[in-house]
Amino acid sequence: MSKAITTREADYSQWYNDLVIRGGLADYSAVRGCMVIKPYGYALWENMRDQLDKMFKATGHVNAYFPLFIPKSFLSKEAAHVEGFAKECAVVTHYRLKNDPDGNGIVVDPEAKLEEELIVRPTSETIIWNTYRDWIQSYRDLPLLINQWANVVRWEMRTRLFLRTAEFLWQEGHTAHASKEEAIEETKKMLDVYAEFVENYMAVPVIKGVKTPNERFAGAEDTYCIEALMQDGKALQAGTSHFLGQNFAKAFDVKFLNKDNSQEYVWATSWGVSTRLIGALIMAHSDDQGLVLPPRIAPLQVVIVPIYKGEDSKPVIDEKANAIVHALRAKGVSVKYDHHDNARPGWKFAEYELQGVPVRIALGLRDIEQNVAEIARRDTREKQTVSLEGIDAFVEKLLEDIQENMYHKAKGFRDSNIREANSWNEFVQLLDEKAGFVSAHWDGSGETEEKIKELTKATIRCIPLHNPQEAGNCILSGKPSSQRVLFARAY
Amino acid sequence: MSKAITTREADYSQWYNDLVIRGGLADYSAVRGCMVIKPYGYALWENMRDQLDKMFKATGHVNAYFPLFIPKSFLSKEAAHVEGFAKECAVVTHYRLKNDPDGNGIVVDPEAKLEEELIVRPTSETIIWNTYRDWIQSYRDLPLLINQWANVVRWEMRTRLFLRTAEFLWQEGHTAHASKEEAIEETKKMLDVYAEFVENYMAVPVIKGVKTPNERFAGAEDTYCIEALMQDGKALQAGTSHFLGQNFAKAFDVKFLNKDNSQEYVWATSWGVSTRLIGALIMAHSDDQGLVLPPRIAPLQVVIVPIYKGEDSKPVIDEKANAIVHALRAKGVSVKYDHHDNARPGWKFAEYELQGVPVRIALGLRDIEQNVAEIARRDTREKQTVSLEGIDAFVEKLLEDIQENMYHKAKGFRDSNIREANSWNEFVQLLDEKAGFVSAHWDGSGETEEKIKELTKATIRCIPLHNPQEAGNCILSGKPSSQRVLFARAY
Repeated sequence: MSKAITTREADYSQWYNDLVIRGGLADYSAVRGCMVIKPYGYALWENMRDQLDKMFKATGHVNAYFPLFIPKSFLSKEAAHVEGFAKECAVVTHYRLKNDPDGNGIVVDPEAKLEEELIVRPTSETIIWNTYRDWIQSYRDLPLLINQWANVVRWEMRTRLFLRTAEFLWQEGHTAHASKEEAIEETKKMLDVYAEFVENYMAVPVIKGVKTPNERFAGAEDTYCIEALMQDGKALQAGTSHFLGQNFAKAFDVKFLNKDNSQEYVWATSWGVSTRLIGALIMAHSDDQGLVLPPRIAPLQVVIVPIYKGEDSKPVIDEKANAIVHALRAKGVSVKYDHHDNARPGWKFAEYELQGVPVRIALGLRDIEQNVAEIARRDTREKQTVSLEGIDAFVEKLLEDIQENMYHKAKGFRDSNIREANSWNEFVQLLDEKAGFVSAHWDGSGETEEKIKELTKATIRCIPLHNPQEAGNCILSGKPSSQRVLFARAY
Repeated sequence: MSKAITTREADYSQWYNDLVIRGGLADYSAVRGCMVIKPYGYALWENMRDQLDKMFKATGHVNAYFPLFIPKSFLSKEAAHVEGFAKECAVVTHYRLKNDPDGNGIVVDPEAKLEEELIVRPTSETIIWNTYRDWIQSYRDLPLLINQWANVVRWEMRTRLFLRTAEFLWQEGHTAHASKEEAIEETKKMLDVYAEFVENYMAVPVIKGVKTPNERFAGAEDTYCIEALMQDGKALQAGTSHFLGQNFAKAFDVKFLNKDNSQEYVWATSWGVSTRLIGALIMAHSDDQGLVLPPRIAPLQVVIVPIYKGEDSKPVIDEKANAIVHALRAKGVSVKYDHHDNARPGWKFAEYELQGVPVRIALGLRDIEQNVAEIARRDTREKQTVSLEGIDAFVEKLLEDIQENMYHKAKGFRDSNIREANSWNEFVQLLDEKAGFVSAHWDGSGETEEKIKELTKATIRCIPLHNPQEAGNCILSGKPSSQRVLFARAY
């Protein structure tokens, strides 16, 4: 490692960037706001994607692919949607380049202007519901349970690797239903799938809730979300699931013949998670030595580093290491034996710590003579000497322990950072001095919500599901309130 | 099925479209030249992608992701590349929409004009080699073996579903090497991977060869290709692998410190296959009843259709069918039991034939009493009565037979459609009356090649690898030639 990464205390934001770039996850690109996802980062995304895809298919969904481009007029068809998405977009206006007649390289051919501009999809409700009109005639065609893995573009002015980039990768589910009840059930089901994935695979605890009208997806009747807490006390929205009512069906005239033989508008949901989850993963678990990745989605679960002492030791250590590799692979564990002689063991240790590999096994000649190896776990950085006998089973168990420990540690942190505020002063003080979630009464008005945001930069992250009802007074307006909601400053 | 699909003889092109659309693979979209890949088509692509991805990883490659957009100036940096790709492109010129001050919906905000236009990637050599400059310093950083799964856009004027669409999905491998020899070896290795995939999984025989300079990828020193033959006698380029020399390294100034401690330009390859392969698959195998899909990549390998006779027969048939489903799934066979009562068996038979499901099992009460089932294979449309005892093993074997038979049938057709022409008249007559590949002498000049294309619409598909050397005279110019090359009209 060339030099130590920035510590969280010194500069949290720089620490995050150091981990992303030097941990080999992503890099800036030559295109403003767009990132390059490097092989290690992409392998992480592949693991996340594959697991989510399995869960989507297990809940009856299929994948499809819709066009990258959306005719400009489509964005205007749903009144709320246009407000939310017809803003910072990449707009395609021409379809041809030509040699500059004045010899200045290539220029856009002014004669190849599109009659109607195309928008690079910021989200695909419009193009998909325009397609569903042809696919849905009767209740027999429903439900339509379709997901898409795709790239989308939102022209963000301030970008941060993974957290907010102009282009990002995501999945977007778009389902069509014959009844309101079924669509709401689907919305909630997918929220549960997201929560299960983020908690059980990413080891990040989440709070399930519903957004206030102000924070809803543009075009939704209700937006459900999962909210996670980062180590700096800021919240991060990790996934959303929208009940769209009949808004898009009406905008794109998608009707079906119901069982009573009458025409009815179709009910819709949409739901998505993105490469932003990688940002959440990093900020939930990592430390000043680098990334800490949960075993279930880590691109590499175990690394074995030989401690060679002279040429003689090589064949002995290599043989034992290869036997461990073999045994671990047989158990489905991903493992790498790093026997390259281009770096000393200490350098390798630091590098794999930076990369967040959950388990490191160091193997020297003396270890082998004593029939042991040194095992270091990344989450706690604890080392222990373990018998080579049954080391594969030990590591398998250790990976499970690490997964669980990471979740419990993150949950402990999250739980201890939900605090109640009962006055405006207390509210502001908590936000400034402790950060985290602040549970407080709110009068339910968009104006108050907006005012609180202006004054404190804190937003209502969600109204938790099954929220206890409790009489109180709004921390800002003092008006009566029937429940607390969760505020936080957020990514 | 509402009505029969068009036959190949009546209208080959309409037959193809019928299969794509009514077989549920893809659909036209509201955006000119862009298609919607429907769930069944996408499941087919997923199977193809997953198998290719496995083969790429087995040959040491990793995936990454690079930006969708390419700064316009990048396209000009490699002289030949600009000629090939800076033409029909989607050009992003603005990054914001706004409400029309005159109240006509939304318009492009003229103040949000990009300083430099962005091109939606038609291929990613330029943005990737611009990135590699930062990733490669020394021979220790090489080889770099990276692949990307992505969408690309080429503004084609005449589009056909899968075969030629403005947007399509593909993979593009971009590798960097320390020596010319290693880069050429990589180029050939990936051609072999493609050939293995197309032959062994898609059951489509291919001819491996090298393109003439006229037909090379823009920016390549050599383009290797695999060429397949469709049932109408037209050729289709199924994959290409390019040796790029040091062209892109020079254009983007990518040097490395070699083992002799001196700076050298990096050697490059790129290689790709796309959703176009689905078009090849359809046209190589399908018939007038619909799609014929090879078992190894078919989204659904087996369908079981019950022949109910009265309510009493249901539980008996269902039980037996579910037992078969269970036994087949245990063998890793994908199988669906279609017990829906919304259609008669005959309708279902036709529907699954249209969809190209390799094996259909029909199961009635009398069959069960006799301990048999009727099995129909899609490739030959033969039916046979098979004992229920060990039916899972029978089907497993049958799927292998079908895979093999499809390959051999396609190979027989291909082989019998390679003909030698020894004069211009014979050449033209073969193209017009027989189609297929025509093997003929050519004088090696780009002018002659161009002239032949003008006169006949036939192009040189490739100079086959290990092509026998044989003295002769060019069919057009009469000039001496040392080998035959393969001509064909092509998709």
